Amino acid sequence: MNNKLEYLAKLFQKTGKKKIEHYVLTRLWHQLDNDEVKMVPQQYVARHTEKYALTDVYFPQVGIHIEVNEPPHYDNERRIQADEIRKLEIEKNTGHKVYVIDCRSDLREIHHQINVVIDVIKNRIEEQKKVGNFKPWNPDSEFDPSYWKSKKEIKVSDEISLRTIEDICLLFDADVNKTKRGYQRRGSIEHPRDKEVRIWWPSEKSRSGWINKYDAENGIITETHADSQKKVDHYKHHASRTQIRYVFLKHVDFLGFKNYKFLGIFQNDLDKSGKDIGTIWVKVGDVLNLETLTYHEV
Amino acid sequence: MNNKLEYLAKLFQKTGKKKIEHYVLTRLWHQLDNDEVKMVPQQYVARHTEKYALTDVYFPQVGIHIEVNEPPHYDNERRIQADEIRKLEIEKNTGHKVYVIDCRSDLREIHHQINVVIDVIKNRIEEQKKVGNFKPWNPDSEFDPSYWKSKKEIKVSDEISLRTIEDICLLFDADVNKTKRGYQRRGSIEHPRDKEVRIWWPSEKSRSGWINKYDAENGIITETHADSQKKVDHYKHHASRTQIRYVFLKHVDFLGFKNYKFLGIFQNDLDKSGKDIGTIWVKVGDVLNLETLTYHEV
Repeated sequence: MNNKLEYLAKLFQKTGKKKIEHYVLTRLWHQLDNDEVKMVPQQYVARHTEKYALTDVYFPQVGIHIEVNEPPHYDNERRIQADEIRKLEIEKNTGHKVYVIDCRSDLREIHHQINVVIDVIKNRIEEQKKVGNFKPWNPDSEFDPSYWKSKKEIKVSDEISLRTIEDICLLFDADVNKTKRGYQRRGSIEHPRDKEVRIWWPSEKSRSGWINKYDAENGIITETHADSQKKVDHYKHHASRTQIRYVFLKHVDFLGFKNYKFLGIFQNDLDKSGKDIGTIWVKVGDVLNLETLTYHEV
Repeated sequence: MNNKLEYLAKLFQKTGKKKIEHYVLTRLWHQLDNDEVKMVPQQYVARHTEKYALTDVYFPQVGIHIEVNEPPHYDNERRIQADEIRKLEIEKNTGHKVYVIDCRSDLREIHHQINVVIDVIKNRIEEQKKVGNFKPWNPDSEFDPSYWKSKKEIKVSDEISLRTIEDICLLFDADVNKTKRGYQRRGSIEHPRDKEVRIWWPSEKSRSGWINKYDAENGIITETHADSQKKVDHYKHHASRTQIRYVFLKHVDFLGFKNYKFLGIFQNDLDKSGKDIGTIWVKVGDVLNLETLTYHEV
Protein backbone atom coordinates (compact mmCIF):
# COMPACT_ATOMS: atom_id res chain seq x y z
CA MET A 1 0.00 0.00 0.00
CA ASN A 2 1.19 3.49 -0.64
CA ASN A 3 0.32 6.97 0.62
CA LYS A 4 -2.24 7.68 -2.07
CA LEU A 5 -4.22 4.51 -1.44
CA GLU A 6 -4.01 5.11 2.31
CA TYR A 7 -5.14 8.73 1.89
CA LEU A 8 -8.08 7.92 -0.38
CA ALA A 9 -9.24 4.84 1.49
CA LYS A 10 -9.23 6.84 4.71
CA LEU A 11 -10.88 9.80 3.00
CA PHE A 12 -13.73 7.63 1.70
CA GLN A 13 -14.15 6.06 5.11
CA LYS A 14 -14.27 9.40 6.93
CA THR A 15 -16.78 10.93 4.53
CA GLY A 16 -19.33 8.12 4.71
CA LYS A 17 -21.80 9.79 7.05
CA LYS A 18 -23.75 11.76 4.45
CA LYS A 19 -24.49 9.00 2.01
CA ILE A 20 -25.41 10.93 -1.15
CA GLU A 21 -22.46 13.29 -0.71
CA HIS A 22 -20.25 10.23 -0.26
CA TYR A 23 -21.59 8.67 -3.43
CA VAL A 24 -20.83 11.83 -5.42
CA LEU A 25 -17.35 12.15 -3.90
CA THR A 26 -16.41 8.55 -4.77
CA ARG A 27 -17.72 9.00 -8.31
CA LEU A 28 -15.80 12.23 -8.81
CA TRP A 29 -12.60 10.46 -7.85
CA HIS A 30 -13.07 7.23 -9.81
CA GLN A 31 -14.46 8.85 -12.94
CA LEU A 32 -11.83 11.59 -12.96
CA ASP A 33 -9.44 8.64 -12.78
CA ASN A 34 -6.24 10.62 -12.47
CA ASP A 35 -4.00 9.93 -9.49
CA GLU A 36 -2.05 13.14 -10.09
CA VAL A 37 -5.10 15.09 -8.96
CA LYS A 38 -5.58 15.82 -5.28
CA MET A 39 -9.09 15.75 -3.87
CA VAL A 40 -9.85 17.30 -0.49
CA PRO A 41 -13.14 16.97 1.37
CA GLN A 42 -14.51 19.56 3.78
CA GLN A 43 -12.27 22.39 2.65
CA TYR A 44 -12.08 25.34 5.02
CA VAL A 45 -13.04 28.62 3.33
CA ALA A 46 -13.19 32.03 5.04
CA ARG A 47 -16.46 33.94 4.56
CA HIS A 48 -17.71 37.41 5.32
CA THR A 49 -20.93 36.85 7.16
CA GLU A 50 -19.79 33.82 9.12
CA LYS A 51 -16.47 32.81 10.57
CA TYR A 52 -15.92 30.15 7.92
CA ALA A 53 -17.51 27.61 5.60
CA LEU A 54 -16.63 24.04 4.68
CA THR A 55 -17.13 23.04 1.07
CA ASP A 56 -17.94 19.38 0.42
CA VAL A 57 -15.18 18.60 -2.08
CA TYR A 58 -12.21 20.70 -3.21
CA PHE A 59 -9.67 20.23 -5.98
CA PRO A 60 -6.81 22.54 -4.91
CA GLN A 61 -4.73 22.27 -8.11
CA VAL A 62 -7.54 23.71 -10.22
CA GLY A 63 -9.33 25.84 -7.62
CA ILE A 64 -12.66 24.07 -7.92
CA HIS A 65 -15.09 23.42 -5.07
CA ILE A 66 -18.10 21.13 -5.29
CA GLU A 67 -21.17 21.38 -3.14
CA VAL A 68 -23.41 18.33 -3.00
CA ASN A 69 -26.93 19.50 -2.25
CA GLU A 70 -29.23 16.78 -1.00
CA PRO A 71 -32.99 17.33 -1.48
CA PRO A 72 -33.57 19.26 1.80
CA HIS A 73 -31.43 22.09 0.36
CA TYR A 74 -34.35 22.88 -1.93
CA ASP A 75 -37.07 22.74 0.72
CA ASN A 76 -37.84 26.43 0.69
CA GLU A 77 -36.91 29.64 -1.09
CA ARG A 78 -34.97 30.95 1.93
CA ARG A 79 -32.65 27.96 1.98
CA ILE A 80 -32.13 28.15 -1.79
CA GLN A 81 -31.18 31.82 -1.52
CA ALA A 82 -28.89 31.20 1.47
CA ASP A 83 -27.04 28.53 -0.54
CA GLU A 84 -26.70 30.91 -3.48
CA ILE A 85 -25.28 33.71 -1.27
CA ARG A 86 -22.87 31.26 0.33
CA LYS A 87 -21.71 30.10 -3.11
CA LEU A 88 -21.11 33.65 -4.35
CA GLU A 89 -19.25 34.60 -1.16
CA ILE A 90 -16.96 31.59 -1.42
CA GLU A 91 -16.23 32.37 -5.07
CA LYS A 92 -15.55 36.04 -4.25
CA ASN A 93 -13.31 35.32 -1.26
CA THR A 94 -11.26 32.56 -2.83
CA GLY A 95 -11.26 33.41 -6.52
CA HIS A 96 -12.24 29.76 -7.00
CA LYS A 97 -15.23 28.33 -8.80
CA VAL A 98 -18.02 26.50 -6.95
CA TYR A 99 -20.11 23.84 -8.71
CA VAL A 100 -23.32 22.49 -7.24
CA ILE A 101 -24.59 18.93 -7.70
CA ASP A 102 -28.36 18.92 -7.33
CA CYS A 103 -29.31 15.53 -5.87
CA ARG A 104 -33.05 15.74 -6.32
CA SER A 105 -32.86 13.89 -9.60
CA ASP A 106 -32.21 10.26 -10.48
CA LEU A 107 -28.93 8.40 -10.78
CA ARG A 108 -28.34 9.10 -14.47
CA GLU A 109 -29.04 12.81 -14.14
CA ILE A 110 -26.67 13.05 -11.15
CA HIS A 111 -24.04 11.17 -13.14
CA HIS A 112 -24.52 13.68 -15.94
CA GLN A 113 -23.97 16.64 -13.59
CA ILE A 114 -20.81 15.01 -12.24
CA ASN A 115 -19.52 14.42 -15.78
CA VAL A 116 -19.91 18.12 -16.54
CA VAL A 117 -17.74 19.07 -13.54
CA ILE A 118 -15.19 16.38 -14.40
CA ASP A 119 -14.85 17.81 -17.90
CA VAL A 120 -14.14 21.25 -16.43
CA ILE A 121 -11.46 19.82 -14.13
CA LYS A 122 -9.88 17.85 -16.97
CA ASN A 123 -9.78 20.93 -19.18
CA ARG A 124 -8.13 23.04 -16.50
CA ILE A 125 -5.48 20.38 -15.96
CA GLU A 126 -4.87 20.19 -19.71
CA GLU A 127 -4.41 23.97 -19.81
CA GLN A 128 -1.95 23.86 -16.90
CA LYS A 129 0.00 21.05 -18.54
CA LYS A 130 0.20 23.04 -21.78
CA VAL A 131 1.76 26.05 -20.08
CA GLY A 132 3.82 23.80 -17.82
CA ASN A 133 2.55 24.85 -14.39
CA PHE A 134 0.63 21.72 -13.42
CA LYS A 135 1.87 20.38 -10.08
CA PRO A 136 1.01 16.66 -9.78
CA TRP A 137 -0.31 15.55 -6.42
CA ASN A 138 2.47 13.94 -4.47
CA PRO A 139 1.61 13.03 -0.88
CA ASP A 140 5.03 11.47 -0.42
CA SER A 141 6.74 14.86 -0.81
CA GLU A 142 3.90 16.91 0.63
CA PHE A 143 4.97 16.03 4.16
CA ASP A 144 8.68 15.76 3.41
CA PRO A 145 10.77 18.70 4.75
CA SER A 146 13.65 17.86 2.35
CA TYR A 147 11.29 18.39 -0.57
CA TRP A 148 10.34 21.86 0.60
CA LYS A 149 13.93 22.70 1.49
CA SER A 150 14.97 21.87 -2.06
CA LYS A 151 12.36 24.32 -3.36
CA LYS A 152 14.15 27.09 -1.37
CA GLU A 153 10.87 28.94 -0.90
CA ILE A 154 7.77 28.06 1.07
CA LYS A 155 4.35 29.55 0.37
CA VAL A 156 1.12 29.48 2.36
CA SER A 157 -0.69 28.71 -0.89
CA ASP A 158 1.32 25.46 -1.23
CA GLU A 159 -0.64 24.21 1.81
CA ILE A 160 2.47 22.84 3.47
CA SER A 161 1.96 20.50 6.38
CA LEU A 162 4.72 18.78 8.33
CA ARG A 163 4.18 15.76 10.52
CA THR A 164 6.48 16.52 13.48
CA ILE A 165 8.52 19.19 15.27
CA GLU A 166 11.60 17.25 14.08
CA ASP A 167 10.50 17.88 10.49
CA ILE A 168 10.03 21.60 11.17
CA CYS A 169 13.59 21.70 12.57
CA LEU A 170 14.91 19.88 9.50
CA LEU A 171 13.35 22.48 7.23
CA PHE A 172 15.26 25.30 8.96
CA ASP A 173 18.45 23.37 9.89
CA ALA A 174 17.55 23.97 13.52
CA ASP A 175 18.86 21.76 16.33
CA VAL A 176 15.94 19.59 17.45
CA ASN A 177 17.59 19.08 20.87
CA LYS A 178 16.96 22.74 21.61
CA THR A 179 13.22 22.09 21.44
CA LYS A 180 13.48 19.77 24.45
CA ARG A 181 13.35 20.93 28.05
CA GLY A 182 13.73 17.83 30.19
CA TYR A 183 10.70 15.72 29.44
CA GLN A 184 8.84 18.72 28.13
CA ARG A 185 8.76 20.25 24.68
CA ARG A 186 9.22 23.93 23.99
CA GLY A 187 6.56 25.73 21.95
CA SER A 188 9.12 27.50 19.74
CA ILE A 189 12.85 27.90 19.07
CA GLU A 190 15.16 30.59 17.78
CA HIS A 191 16.08 30.49 14.10
CA PRO A 192 19.69 29.13 13.88
CA ARG A 193 20.79 32.01 11.63
CA ASP A 194 18.69 34.88 12.96
CA LYS A 195 18.20 35.68 16.65
CA GLU A 196 15.32 38.03 15.86
CA VAL A 197 13.23 35.19 14.43
CA ARG A 198 11.46 32.40 16.26
CA ILE A 199 10.00 29.27 14.70
CA TRP A 200 6.68 28.70 16.49
CA TRP A 201 4.27 25.72 16.50
CA PRO A 202 1.22 26.91 18.46
CA SER A 203 -1.78 24.73 19.12
CA GLU A 204 -5.36 25.91 19.39
CA LYS A 205 -5.72 23.46 22.23
CA SER A 206 -4.73 24.99 25.55
CA ARG A 207 -1.35 23.59 26.66
CA SER A 208 0.40 24.23 30.02
CA GLY A 209 -1.87 27.24 30.43
CA TRP A 210 -0.99 28.87 27.10
CA ILE A 211 -4.00 29.87 25.02
CA ASN A 212 -3.72 30.60 21.29
CA LYS A 213 -6.58 31.70 19.08
CA TYR A 214 -6.27 31.79 15.31
CA ASP A 215 -8.46 34.07 13.20
CA ALA A 216 -7.95 32.73 9.67
CA GLU A 217 -9.99 35.37 7.89
CA ASN A 218 -7.88 38.25 9.20
CA GLY A 219 -4.59 36.38 9.64
CA ILE A 220 -4.32 37.09 13.36
CA ILE A 221 -3.17 34.92 16.27
CA THR A 222 -3.86 35.95 19.84
CA GLU A 223 -1.40 34.48 22.35
CA THR A 224 -2.09 34.65 26.06
CA HIS A 225 -2.00 32.63 29.29
CA ALA A 226 -4.71 31.38 31.64
CA ASP A 227 -2.81 32.54 34.73
CA SER A 228 -3.40 36.28 35.24
CA GLN A 229 0.17 37.05 36.37
CA LYS A 230 1.78 35.06 33.54
CA LYS A 231 -0.61 36.76 31.13
CA VAL A 232 0.62 40.21 32.12
CA ASP A 233 4.28 39.10 32.24
CA HIS A 234 4.04 37.64 28.75
CA TYR A 235 2.39 40.76 27.36
CA LYS A 236 5.08 42.96 28.90
CA HIS A 237 7.83 40.76 27.52
CA HIS A 238 6.59 41.42 23.98
CA ALA A 239 5.32 44.97 24.51
CA SER A 240 8.60 46.79 23.94
CA ARG A 241 9.66 45.55 20.52
CA THR A 242 8.52 43.57 17.55
CA GLN A 243 9.60 40.05 16.71
CA ILE A 244 9.14 37.82 13.67
CA ARG A 245 7.70 34.33 13.94
CA TYR A 246 7.39 31.60 11.35
CA VAL A 247 4.18 29.88 12.32
CA PHE A 248 3.17 26.22 11.95
CA LEU A 249 -0.26 25.59 13.46
CA LYS A 250 -0.64 22.24 15.15
CA HIS A 251 -3.92 20.59 14.26
CA VAL A 252 -5.58 17.28 13.52
CA ASP A 253 -6.81 17.10 9.93
CA PHE A 254 -10.09 15.47 8.94
CA LEU A 255 -8.32 12.15 8.29
CA GLY A 256 -7.15 12.08 11.89
CA PHE A 257 -3.50 12.87 11.07
CA LYS A 258 -1.79 15.25 13.49
CA ASN A 259 0.27 17.81 11.64
CA TYR A 260 1.76 21.31 11.60
CA LYS A 261 0.43 23.59 8.89
CA PHE A 262 2.46 26.55 7.65
CA LEU A 263 0.39 29.70 8.31
CA GLY A 264 2.93 32.32 7.21
CA ILE A 265 5.26 34.92 8.73
CA PHE A 266 3.80 36.80 11.69
CA GLN A 267 4.84 39.89 13.69
CA ASN A 268 3.49 41.12 17.01
CA ASP A 269 1.40 44.28 16.78
CA LEU A 270 2.44 46.58 19.65
CA ASP A 271 -0.67 48.77 19.39
CA LYS A 272 -3.25 46.00 19.22
CA SER A 273 -1.70 43.88 21.99
CA GLY A 274 -2.70 44.61 25.56
CA LYS A 275 -2.63 43.40 29.18
CA ASP A 276 -6.19 42.17 28.91
CA ILE A 277 -6.14 40.52 25.53
CA GLY A 278 -2.53 39.33 25.32
CA THR A 279 -0.09 39.51 22.41
CA ILE A 280 -1.56 39.93 18.95
CA TRP A 281 0.41 38.41 16.08
CA VAL A 282 -0.44 39.66 12.60
CA LYS A 283 0.50 37.96 9.34
CA VAL A 284 3.11 40.01 7.45
CA GLY A 285 4.17 37.47 4.84
CA ASP A 286 2.90 34.46 2.84
CA VAL A 287 6.10 33.57 1.02
CA LEU A 288 9.43 32.90 2.74
CA ASN A 289 12.81 32.43 1.12
CA LEU A 290 14.50 29.77 3.25
CA GLU A 291 18.03 30.95 2.35
CA THR A 292 17.85 34.74 2.49
CA LEU A 293 14.98 34.75 5.03
CA THR A 294 13.31 37.53 3.08
CA TYR A 295 9.55 37.32 2.92
CA HIS A 296 6.68 39.00 1.17
CA GLU A 297 2.90 38.90 0.88
CA VAL A 298 1.21 37.11 -2.01
CA MET B 1 -33.81 10.35 -5.73
CA ASN B 2 -34.62 6.94 -7.04
CA ASN B 3 -34.19 3.37 -5.85
CA LYS B 4 -30.81 2.85 -7.51
CA LEU B 5 -29.23 5.92 -5.95
CA GLU B 6 -30.75 5.01 -2.58
CA TYR B 7 -29.49 1.43 -2.88
CA LEU B 8 -25.94 2.37 -3.88
CA ALA B 9 -25.55 5.26 -1.47
CA LYS B 10 -26.69 2.99 1.35
CA LEU B 11 -24.49 0.15 0.08
CA PHE B 12 -21.39 2.40 0.07
CA GLN B 13 -22.25 3.65 3.53
CA LYS B 14 -22.72 0.18 4.98
CA THR B 15 -19.49 -1.18 3.50
CA GLY B 16 -17.23 1.56 4.82
CA LYS B 17 -15.72 -0.34 7.71
CA LYS B 18 -12.94 -2.09 5.80
CA LYS B 19 -11.41 0.84 4.04
CA ILE B 20 -9.42 -0.82 1.24
CA GLU B 21 -12.29 -3.17 0.42
CA HIS B 22 -14.55 -0.13 0.33
CA TYR B 23 -12.20 1.69 -2.02
CA VAL B 24 -12.17 -1.30 -4.42
CA LEU B 25 -15.96 -1.69 -4.25
CA THR B 26 -16.59 1.99 -5.08
CA ARG B 27 -14.10 1.82 -7.95
CA LEU B 28 -15.69 -1.33 -9.38
CA TRP B 29 -19.03 0.41 -9.47
CA HIS B 30 -17.96 3.79 -10.85
CA GLN B 31 -15.52 2.40 -13.42
CA LEU B 32 -17.93 -0.28 -14.60
CA ASP B 33 -20.26 2.70 -15.02
CA ASN B 34 -23.35 0.75 -16.03
CA ASP B 35 -26.49 1.23 -14.00
CA GLU B 36 -28.06 -1.89 -15.51
CA VAL B 37 -25.59 -3.99 -13.55
CA LYS B 38 -26.43 -5.04 -10.02
CA MET B 39 -23.64 -5.14 -7.45
CA VAL B 40 -24.10 -6.98 -4.17
CA PRO B 41 -21.68 -6.86 -1.25
CA GLN B 42 -21.22 -9.67 1.26
CA GLN B 43 -22.87 -12.35 -0.82
CA TYR B 44 -23.86 -15.49 1.06
CA VAL B 45 -22.30 -18.63 -0.47
CA ALA B 46 -22.73 -22.18 0.88
CA ARG B 47 -19.46 -24.09 1.42
CA HIS B 48 -18.54 -27.65 2.27
CA THR B 49 -16.19 -27.32 5.18
CA GLU B 50 -17.96 -24.43 6.87
CA LYS B 51 -21.58 -23.51 7.16
CA TYR B 52 -21.21 -20.63 4.71
CA ALA B 53 -18.95 -17.90 3.34
CA LEU B 54 -19.50 -14.26 2.46
CA THR B 55 -17.77 -12.96 -0.63
CA ASP B 56 -16.84 -9.27 -0.63
CA VAL B 57 -18.54 -8.23 -3.88
CA TYR B 58 -20.89 -10.18 -6.16
CA PHE B 59 -22.29 -9.44 -9.59
CA PRO B 60 -25.31 -11.78 -9.80
CA GLN B 61 -26.13 -11.21 -13.49
CA VAL B 62 -22.73 -12.50 -14.60
CA GLY B 63 -21.96 -14.90 -11.72
CA ILE B 64 -18.74 -13.15 -10.68
CA HIS B 65 -17.51 -12.79 -7.11
CA ILE B 66 -14.64 -10.53 -6.06
CA GLU B 67 -12.53 -11.02 -2.98
CA VAL B 68 -10.53 -8.02 -1.79
CA ASN B 69 -7.49 -9.30 0.04
CA GLU B 70 -5.81 -6.74 2.27
CA PRO B 71 -2.12 -7.32 3.08
CA PRO B 72 -2.72 -9.53 6.18
CA HIS B 73 -4.17 -12.19 3.83
CA TYR B 74 -0.61 -12.85 2.66
CA ASP B 75 0.97 -12.95 6.12
CA ASN B 76 1.75 -16.65 6.04
CA GLU B 77 1.54 -19.69 3.79
CA ARG B 78 -1.30 -21.20 5.81
CA ARG B 79 -3.53 -18.19 5.28
CA ILE B 80 -2.68 -18.06 1.57
CA GLN B 81 -3.61 -21.72 1.18
CA ALA B 82 -6.80 -21.32 3.20
CA ASP B 83 -7.85 -18.46 0.90
CA GLU B 84 -7.11 -20.59 -2.15
CA ILE B 85 -9.18 -23.53 -0.83
CA ARG B 86 -12.02 -21.18 0.00
CA LYS B 87 -11.91 -19.72 -3.52
CA LEU B 88 -11.99 -23.15 -5.17
CA GLU B 89 -14.83 -24.31 -2.94
CA ILE B 90 -16.93 -21.27 -3.73
CA GLU B 91 -16.31 -21.73 -7.47
CA LYS B 92 -17.19 -25.43 -7.27
CA ASN B 93 -20.36 -24.92 -5.21
CA THR B 94 -21.75 -22.01 -7.15
CA GLY B 95 -20.44 -22.54 -10.67
CA HIS B 96 -19.40 -18.89 -10.45
CA LYS B 97 -15.98 -17.35 -10.96
CA VAL B 98 -14.06 -15.74 -8.07
CA TYR B 99 -11.51 -12.96 -8.76
CA VAL B 100 -9.05 -11.79 -6.13
CA ILE B 101 -7.75 -8.24 -5.82
CA ASP B 102 -4.35 -8.33 -4.13
CA CYS B 103 -4.04 -5.08 -2.15
CA ARG B 104 -0.37 -5.31 -1.25
CA SER B 105 0.58 -3.18 -4.23
CA ASP B 106 0.21 0.54 -4.95
CA LEU B 107 -2.77 2.48 -6.24
CA ARG B 108 -1.98 2.08 -9.94
CA GLU B 109 -1.41 -1.66 -9.71
CA ILE B 110 -4.67 -2.10 -7.78
CA HIS B 111 -6.46 -0.02 -10.41
CA HIS B 112 -4.98 -2.29 -13.06
CA GLN B 113 -6.28 -5.43 -11.32
CA ILE B 114 -9.74 -3.87 -11.04
CA ASN B 115 -9.70 -2.98 -14.74
CA VAL B 116 -9.02 -6.59 -15.63
CA VAL B 117 -12.09 -7.77 -13.69
CA ILE B 118 -14.21 -4.98 -15.15
CA ASP B 119 -13.27 -6.10 -18.66
CA VAL B 120 -14.40 -9.63 -17.84
CA ILE B 121 -17.74 -8.35 -16.51
CA LYS B 122 -18.25 -6.13 -19.56
CA ASN B 123 -17.51 -9.01 -21.93
CA ARG B 124 -19.97 -11.31 -20.19
CA ILE B 125 -22.68 -8.67 -20.39
CA GLU B 126 -21.93 -8.15 -24.08
CA GLU B 127 -22.26 -11.89 -24.66
CA GLN B 128 -25.58 -11.99 -22.81
CA LYS B 129 -26.88 -9.03 -24.79
CA LYS B 130 -25.90 -10.72 -28.04
CA VAL B 131 -27.92 -13.85 -27.27
CA GLY B 132 -30.68 -11.78 -25.70
CA ASN B 133 -30.68 -13.12 -22.16
CA PHE B 134 -29.27 -10.11 -20.30
CA LYS B 135 -31.63 -9.04 -17.52
CA PRO B 136 -30.99 -5.38 -16.63
CA TRP B 137 -30.94 -4.56 -12.93
CA ASN B 138 -34.26 -3.08 -11.98
CA PRO B 139 -34.75 -2.50 -8.23
CA ASP B 140 -38.12 -0.89 -8.88
CA SER B 141 -39.54 -4.19 -10.17
CA GLU B 142 -37.38 -6.45 -8.01
CA PHE B 143 -39.62 -5.84 -5.02
CA ASP B 144 -42.83 -5.42 -6.99
CA PRO B 145 -45.21 -8.43 -6.75
CA SER B 146 -47.08 -7.28 -9.92
CA TYR B 147 -43.84 -7.58 -11.88
CA TRP B 148 -43.32 -11.18 -10.80
CA LYS B 149 -46.99 -11.99 -11.30
CA SER B 150 -46.72 -10.80 -14.88
CA LYS B 151 -43.79 -13.19 -15.42
CA LYS B 152 -46.13 -16.08 -14.47
CA GLU B 153 -43.22 -18.06 -13.06
CA ILE B 154 -40.99 -17.44 -10.05
CA LYS B 155 -37.51 -18.92 -9.66
CA VAL B 156 -35.20 -19.12 -6.68
CA SER B 157 -32.36 -18.07 -8.99
CA ASP B 158 -34.16 -14.77 -9.68
CA GLU B 159 -33.42 -13.87 -6.04
CA ILE B 160 -36.93 -12.60 -5.44
CA SER B 161 -37.52 -10.56 -2.31
CA LEU B 162 -40.80 -8.98 -1.31
CA ARG B 163 -41.12 -6.18 1.21
CA THR B 164 -44.28 -7.17 3.07
CA ILE B 165 -46.78 -9.96 3.76
CA GLU B 166 -49.27 -7.83 1.78
CA ASP B 167 -46.96 -8.15 -1.24
CA ILE B 168 -46.72 -11.92 -0.80
CA CYS B 169 -50.53 -12.09 -0.77
CA LEU B 170 -50.74 -9.94 -3.91
CA LEU B 171 -48.44 -12.36 -5.74
CA PHE B 172 -50.81 -15.27 -5.07
CA ASP B 173 -54.14 -13.37 -5.12
CA ALA B 174 -54.55 -14.33 -1.48
CA ASP B 175 -56.79 -12.37 0.88
CA VAL B 176 -54.48 -10.41 3.16
CA ASN B 177 -57.22 -10.19 5.81
CA LYS B 178 -56.85 -13.91 6.36
CA THR B 179 -53.29 -13.32 7.58
CA LYS B 180 -54.63 -11.32 10.52
CA ARG B 181 -55.76 -12.80 13.80
CA GLY B 182 -56.90 -9.92 16.00
CA TYR B 183 -53.82 -7.84 16.54
CA GLN B 184 -51.58 -10.74 15.65
CA ARG B 185 -50.29 -11.90 12.32
CA ARG B 186 -50.43 -15.51 11.19
CA GLY B 187 -47.22 -17.17 10.02
CA SER B 188 -48.81 -18.65 6.89
CA ILE B 189 -52.07 -18.89 4.93
CA GLU B 190 -53.73 -21.37 2.67
CA HIS B 191 -53.31 -20.90 -1.07
CA PRO B 192 -56.63 -19.47 -2.40
CA ARG B 193 -56.83 -22.07 -5.18
CA ASP B 194 -55.30 -25.12 -3.49
CA LYS B 195 -56.15 -26.28 0.03
CA GLU B 196 -53.15 -28.60 0.07
CA VAL B 197 -50.72 -25.70 -0.25
CA ARG B 198 -49.75 -23.12 2.36
CA ILE B 199 -47.84 -19.90 1.73
CA TRP B 200 -45.38 -19.57 4.61
CA TRP B 201 -43.17 -16.70 5.79
CA PRO B 202 -41.00 -18.13 8.54
CA SER B 203 -38.42 -16.11 10.42
CA GLU B 204 -35.14 -17.39 11.80
CA LYS B 205 -35.83 -15.23 14.82
CA SER B 206 -37.91 -17.05 17.40
CA ARG B 207 -41.49 -15.68 17.39
CA SER B 208 -44.29 -16.61 19.84
CA GLY B 209 -42.29 -19.70 20.73
CA TRP B 210 -41.93 -20.98 17.15
CA ILE B 211 -38.36 -21.86 16.18
CA ASN B 212 -37.30 -22.20 12.53
CA LYS B 213 -33.84 -23.15 11.37
CA TYR B 214 -32.81 -22.85 7.76
CA ASP B 215 -29.96 -24.96 6.34
CA ALA B 216 -29.21 -23.26 3.01
CA GLU B 217 -26.65 -25.78 1.81
CA ASN B 218 -29.05 -28.72 2.00
CA GLY B 219 -32.31 -26.82 1.44
CA ILE B 220 -33.87 -27.89 4.74
CA ILE B 221 -36.01 -26.01 7.24
CA THR B 222 -36.61 -27.42 10.71
CA GLU B 223 -39.79 -26.13 12.32
CA THR B 224 -40.46 -26.67 16.00
CA HIS B 225 -41.71 -24.97 19.18
CA ALA B 226 -40.02 -24.01 22.43
CA ASP B 227 -42.88 -25.43 24.51
CA SER B 228 -42.45 -29.23 24.79
CA GLN B 229 -46.20 -30.01 24.52
CA LYS B 230 -46.71 -27.71 21.52
CA LYS B 231 -43.61 -29.23 19.95
CA VAL B 232 -45.08 -32.74 20.11
CA ASP B 233 -48.55 -31.57 19.02
CA HIS B 234 -47.11 -29.76 16.03
CA TYR B 235 -45.06 -32.77 15.01
CA LYS B 236 -48.08 -35.06 15.26
CA HIS B 237 -50.20 -32.66 13.24
CA HIS B 238 -47.78 -33.00 10.32
CA ALA B 239 -46.75 -36.62 10.89
CA SER B 240 -49.60 -38.30 9.04
CA ARG B 241 -49.40 -36.71 5.61
CA THR B 242 -47.29 -34.46 3.45
CA GLN B 243 -48.04 -30.85 2.65
CA ILE B 244 -46.58 -28.33 0.23
CA ARG B 245 -45.37 -24.91 1.35
CA TYR B 246 -44.20 -21.94 -0.70
CA VAL B 247 -41.55 -20.41 1.50
CA PHE B 248 -40.52 -16.75 1.88
CA LEU B 249 -37.84 -16.36 4.55
CA LYS B 250 -38.16 -13.21 6.58
CA HIS B 251 -34.78 -11.54 7.07
CA VAL B 252 -33.02 -8.22 7.30
CA ASP B 253 -30.61 -7.71 4.41
CA PHE B 254 -27.21 -6.03 4.80
CA LEU B 255 -28.69 -2.63 3.89
CA GLY B 256 -31.06 -2.90 6.83
CA PHE B 257 -34.15 -3.53 4.71
CA LYS B 258 -36.59 -6.10 6.13
CA ASN B 259 -37.82 -8.44 3.42
CA TYR B 260 -39.14 -11.88 2.53
CA LYS B 261 -36.93 -13.91 0.25
CA PHE B 262 -38.35 -16.70 -1.91
CA LEU B 263 -36.60 -19.94 -0.90
CA GLY B 264 -38.56 -22.38 -3.06
CA ILE B 265 -41.24 -25.06 -2.72
CA PHE B 266 -40.90 -27.26 0.36
CA GLN B 267 -42.53 -30.49 1.52
CA ASN B 268 -42.43 -32.07 4.98
CA ASP B 269 -40.36 -35.26 5.17
CA LEU B 270 -42.33 -37.80 7.24
CA ASP B 271 -39.30 -40.02 7.88
CA LYS B 272 -36.85 -37.33 8.90
CA SER B 273 -39.29 -35.45 11.15
CA GLY B 274 -39.61 -36.56 14.75
CA LYS B 275 -40.98 -35.70 18.20
CA ASP B 276 -37.58 -34.54 19.33
CA ILE B 277 -36.42 -32.53 16.34
CA GLY B 278 -39.74 -31.25 15.00
CA THR B 279 -41.00 -31.10 11.44
CA ILE B 280 -38.40 -31.22 8.67
CA TRP B 281 -39.26 -29.37 5.46
CA VAL B 282 -37.22 -30.29 2.40
CA LYS B 283 -36.96 -28.27 -0.78
CA VAL B 284 -38.72 -30.04 -3.66
CA GLY B 285 -38.83 -27.23 -6.21
CA ASP B 286 -36.98 -24.08 -7.32
CA VAL B 287 -39.35 -22.93 -10.05
CA LEU B 288 -43.08 -22.37 -9.56
CA ASN B 289 -45.69 -21.67 -12.21
CA LEU B 290 -48.05 -19.18 -10.54
CA GLU B 291 -51.00 -20.19 -12.74
CA THR B 292 -50.85 -23.98 -12.93
CA LEU B 293 -49.06 -24.29 -9.54
CA THR B 294 -46.77 -26.91 -11.07
CA TYR B 295 -43.20 -26.78 -9.86
CA HIS B 296 -39.86 -28.35 -10.65
CA GLU B 297 -36.23 -28.31 -9.62
CA VAL B 298 -33.65 -26.31 -11.55
